[in-house]
Amino acid sequence: MKKEKENKAASKLKVIPLGGLEQIGMNITAFEYEDSIIVVDCGLSFPADDMLGIDLVIPDVTYLKNHIDKVKGFVITHGHEDHIGALPYVLREVNVPIYATRLTMGIIENKLTEHNLMKGTKRKVVKFGQSINLGDFRVEFIKTNHSIVDAAALAIYSPAGIIVHTGDFKVDYTPVYGDAIDLQRFAELGKKGVLALMCDSTNAERPGFTPSEKTVGKAFDMLFNEHKNTRIFVATFASNVDRVQQIINTAYKFGRKVCVEGRSMVNIIETARNLGCINIPENTLVEIDQMKNYPDEQQVIITTGSQGESMDALSRMANNMHRKITIGAGDTVIFSSHPIPGNEKAVTKIINELQRKGADVVFQDTHVSGHACQEEIKLIYTLTHPKYALPVHGEYKHLMAQAKIAESLGIEKDHIFILSSGDVLEFDDTKAKVSGKVPTGGILVDGLGVGDVGNVVLRDRQHLAEDGIMIVVMSLEKVSGELVAGPDIVSRGFVYVRESDELIEEARATVDEALQNCLDKGITDWGKLKSVTKDVLSEYVWKKTKRRPMILPIIMEV
Amino acid sequence: MKKEKENKAASKLKVIPLGGLEQIGMNITAFEYEDSIIVVDCGLSFPADDMLGIDLVIPDVTYLKNHIDKVKGFVITHGHEDHIGALPYVLREVNVPIYATRLTMGIIENKLTEHNLMKGTKRKVVKFGQSINLGDFRVEFIKTNHSIVDAAALAIYSPAGIIVHTGDFKVDYTPVYGDAIDLQRFAELGKKGVLALMCDSTNAERPGFTPSEKTVGKAFDMLFNEHKNTRIFVATFASNVDRVQQIINTAYKFGRKVCVEGRSMVNIIETARNLGCINIPENTLVEIDQMKNYPDEQQVIITTGSQGESMDALSRMANNMHRKITIGAGDTVIFSSHPIPGNEKAVTKIINELQRKGADVVFQDTHVSGHACQEEIKLIYTLTHPKYALPVHGEYKHLMAQAKIAESLGIEKDHIFILSSGDVLEFDDTKAKVSGKVPTGGILVDGLGVGDVGNVVLRDRQHLAEDGIMIVVMSLEKVSGELVAGPDIVSRGFVYVRESDELIEEARATVDEALQNCLDKGITDWGKLKSVTKDVLSEYVWKKTKRRPMILPIIMEV
Repeated sequence: MKKEKENKAASKLKVIPLGGLEQIGMNITAFEYEDSIIVVDCGLSFPADDMLGIDLVIPDVTYLKNHIDKVKGFVITHGHEDHIGALPYVLREVNVPIYATRLTMGIIENKLTEHNLMKGTKRKVVKFGQSINLGDFRVEFIKTNHSIVDAAALAIYSPAGIIVHTGDFKVDYTPVYGDAIDLQRFAELGKKGVLALMCDSTNAERPGFTPSEKTVGKAFDMLFNEHKNTRIFVATFASNVDRVQQIINTAYKFGRKVCVEGRSMVNIIETARNLGCINIPENTLVEIDQMKNYPDEQQVIITTGSQGESMDALSRMANNMHRKITIGAGDTVIFSSHPIPGNEKAVTKIINELQRKGADVVFQDTHVSGHACQEEIKLIYTLTHPKYALPVHGEYKHLMAQAKIAESLGIEKDHIFILSSGDVLEFDDTKAKVSGKVPTGGILVDGLGVGDVGNVVLRDRQHLAEDGIMIVVMSLEKVSGELVAGPDIVSRGFVYVRESDELIEEARATVDEALQNCLDKGITDWGKLKSVTKDVLSEYVWKKTKRRPMILPIIMEV
Repeated sequence: MKKEKENKAASKLKVIPLGGLEQIGMNITAFEYEDSIIVVDCGLSFPADDMLGIDLVIPDVTYLKNHIDKVKGFVITHGHEDHIGALPYVLREVNVPIYATRLTMGIIENKLTEHNLMKGTKRKVVKFGQSINLGDFRVEFIKTNHSIVDAAALAIYSPAGIIVHTGDFKVDYTPVYGDAIDLQRFAELGKKGVLALMCDSTNAERPGFTPSEKTVGKAFDMLFNEHKNTRIFVATFASNVDRVQQIINTAYKFGRKVCVEGRSMVNIIETARNLGCINIPENTLVEIDQMKNYPDEQQVIITTGSQGESMDALSRMANNMHRKITIGAGDTVIFSSHPIPGNEKAVTKIINELQRKGADVVFQDTHVSGHACQEEIKLIYTLTHPKYALPVHGEYKHLMAQAKIAESLGIEKDHIFILSSGDVLEFDDTKAKVSGKVPTGGILVDGLGVGDVGNVVLRDRQHLAEDGIMIVVMSLEKVSGELVAGPDIVSRGFVYVRESDELIEEARATVDEALQNCLDKGITDWGKLKSVTKDVLSEYVWKKTKRRPMILPIIMEV
């Protein structure tokens, strides 16, 4: 790993997003001042549609590895996968302490335990209002609201000024658990003077104000009242502890027992319960095995799978593939979620299946976003009154929408930066500018392999997926170069072989003829024989089928 | 092709949907009475996400082939792919006349020409109000409104009663081209007595009334007025002739020249123009090559690709891949469309790209649906007053939504049928019931192959896509059974080979050892050697990588 050339201009603050700005997810940003680097968040992203077979994508942290002596720690805003999911991978190469609030750390620790990394990782739980010193930086954790408990904004104090990073947030004056976002602290920071605001852009296209999580509780009360005589299933996001709290509250009010299904949700609820972030009345939560002891109208099943994930509990319960519970006629299924873009078809599929089984599917008023809409974004800008605006968290169109909001609030256009991952934004006393670029990118994780699947392998998978493969094997005599066996053709994913004897045999004969032709001419170079095989076969197959399977000639020497 | 056992119960009317009820698209329904069968529509569907490499899906028409002597013709409601797209394939096996209105036939003829089927196919253009006699049936074409010109509903007269099939429709009192839907005729049929109504369910979940196509024209006027100084691009559906007409009207009003980009749109607009379905003022339409002669503010480019299709004109113009036009800073791009479910991510991607290029992307008020909402559905039910309701066109949840509407209008629950493809619904004097099932399904088209890719090939493609393939080749001596070459391992789509020498070599050694073991024990059966190779290698690979590539042992005999 070659050490990069150091930028000589010291006493400048650099903000370097290492991910999160070219796609949804994989949020990670480095802040550098002289010999100190701190890293905010370390998220993963889920594979794009063309990343066949890939499990998840983590950020390229070459820059951190190259400056490992400077890196003081990871400062984490909240416990969602797109902010913490890459930690177990990145920690193996960048083993520095982690700072996070209580539930966030609880969820991180579940991950570290799973990856056998607890022992080797320094961790410190930080309280809201508390600051930690990390080299030239001081980082203060500020209470916010989001769709997961214990979300924090960060005030990052550097000799060059204060940067406020909101994390993912909304403004909830009546949160289910804990306090409302600490708006007074944002105001105080604004009074002190904020150099730059890095604000969540997810909902920057949406006018107005995101409703309070509590509105969902009222909707549950109404729906439970309307469906007094049926079993009730509620599908929602595994990590939304407040949502689960409200479902439990309503269930308790209506004298129902609750069970939680789906491993990820069970884990998070257990962690939240141990930390006191959720309050479950006695004898309310029951094991799934005990549910059969209660009549339908006394049951609530809270489940994962609201995005139509085919392996999740809801889908298995709808498709008779769950060991213990099957959803059918008379059941009520409440989707306490919206489809995440890209999941629309999967969600529709499960709704169709549930309705076909006779279930009553309810999709109304039981979800609110965890992200700030335009009026909330304006509020944070107005309180913090930053000199520079660096919209974060969102695709280009979202960042752009926030940039327009910032402009409408009077921030000068050249003080608003829509950065790309890898951009180095440098602040000095008078100005900010993008001064360079560091290596970034997504590293693909497939099974145990981290980074061993790259573009070549992906292209092969796409090719194989599209038209399959034809393998041509042949054996050549070592000395004479004579063809002593083959060519034989084996195919997979190309045509149904049993009904395509003729096609395959004619293809074989075509290759055979071309090879004999070469050998007769004294051509024995393997490269040449392979390329002739490829050309002849692909031309034949294209003519006959208008398909382009991968063609793989294999020569053996005997 | 075995002749099926005939149902002896004659003088019953049968309605047999051969497709279209398990998925979106592939609409095709047979109506049978004694020795007469007519077929309404013959559509294709686009492949589901897991149908890797498939181009399109057509219905299984085994039932029609088995009763070919009875089949009198295809009666087509309108010219969208999901209603006509399978014709070029199905006609080869079920060569009966096609009946359709003028533009519908024009679009069908483009297809037949492309497939070299014009000569062998009988065609008859039918006018609205006209009836055609087809064996025991008479079919009347009734004017409706839809997102394509010349859409028809059908009144199907049989000795057992009248069935009204709406096709895809909306109620547009102020259509852009031609007359409003012929509501009076629906009313007359209702007075006569309608046995069953088969009504479009696409928007049955949406309350209210779909706005008139004309409202979009007003929106174009406003937007063109707001963007007087920029080049304007409008992306919309290729087949929406009325939409193109309105864009041209507005362009003409604002003194702009128009060019149309995207082969499918160019073809349909040419067909529509030849048939007089679109009215283009002189000197308004110009070739793309001439556009450079006009300043930006006098240009409008109407284009396909509104669904984010990566190969379509809009995407190519946004990504600098179009030969003649590049969209960039200062351009205005109007999306006159909504994303079709499943395309959300692709559409978002192109919006991000356009904004990144500096284009102003507009997504407001320039699209209306072509399908009837709840109040329109109620209107058609009330006018036709059917004895039975058979909701069509839509997924289960849409059919269910229409069933609820029918019930709310007083149709008895047991007179409402949500059918599945293949169901045989029989009507006699007193009742209707599902009396049987005929074979149906989707036949996959991949290149020139129709039906040669089935579940085996698809499963292989999915497997290859997920983890790639490892091929193990070896040569055995014919007589001794001795291993004279190999085993060698070649992989594709599994790992990046150059960086995985060690893994592959160790895998090879593992297989080698296992094979030698077998041979030492005198095992020479190829099946056994292959299964040992598979087992040993897959276990090794799983242990090392947690992946399951396809493993393909190939033995050559020399």
